[in-house]
Amino acid sequence: MTSTATKLAAVQAYVDGFATGDAGAISALFADGATVEDPVGTDEKTGHAAIHEFYVGAIATGAKLEMLGEPRCAGDFVAFPFAVELEWQGQKATIEVIDTFKFNADGKIIEMKAYWGPENMKSA
Amino acid sequence: MTSTATKLAAVQAYVDGFATGDAGAISALFADGATVEDPVGTDEKTGHAAIHEFYVGAIATGAKLEMLGEPRCAGDFVAFPFAVELEWQGQKATIEVIDTFKFNADGKIIEMKAYWGPENMKSA
Repeated sequence: MTSTATKLAAVQAYVDGFATGDAGAISALFADGATVEDPVGTDEKTGHAAIHEFYVGAIATGAKLEMLGEPRCAGDFVAFPFAVELEWQGQKATIEVIDTFKFNADGKIIEMKAYWGPENMKSA
Repeated sequence: MTSTATKLAAVQAYVDGFATGDAGAISALFADGATVEDPVGTDEKTGHAAIHEFYVGAIATGAKLEMLGEPRCAGDFVAFPFAVELEWQGQKATIEVIDTFKFNADGKIIEMKAYWGPENMKSA
């Protein structure tokens, strides 16, 4: 099982990747066959190319992440609460989100799910 | 799909059930064949009787829940961050947790997962 230290480092690298606008650093955290479901209930992005493209788009919105509490590590997973600040239709907005990452045996993310709905988005 | 209002009401009823020490009110939120995995990575409790027994035990620890942010509704799910205050081995402790509930078409919880690890537990 992936260690707590590795999981926490992945969360930090994910937040840092948005801070520096480095989509490659983010997508490098994911395994080849990984899936991203953001938000939960929408079509999954599958595979490294689709996931990289997704994060290029996310970074193009100027998205920055601010942690809103401790990461919670359990089993093969980490869950963490955060706010994302971005530009949405020309306006600054903040969304409160909870992400879960599932890790494979190599410490790579094989599944990401983002939980948020319209009621979690506020205009800044 | 279960409405956002129904999901938010379930989260509130869950928190209220701990506040009033009413395990029956909590287990009534779950569907017959529901599963509870708390924490993620441990054996699931399956079915109404096992889930009720689990919450009777949780309430016996004096557990009270304090929300630490907004519930995030997405697809069939809600995810929410909270702190649980309880007695653990004769000492007061606080654990920061993230729960996810998955709902069936009747608005009942069919799957609960609790994300937390030992590093999220603090002595009070």
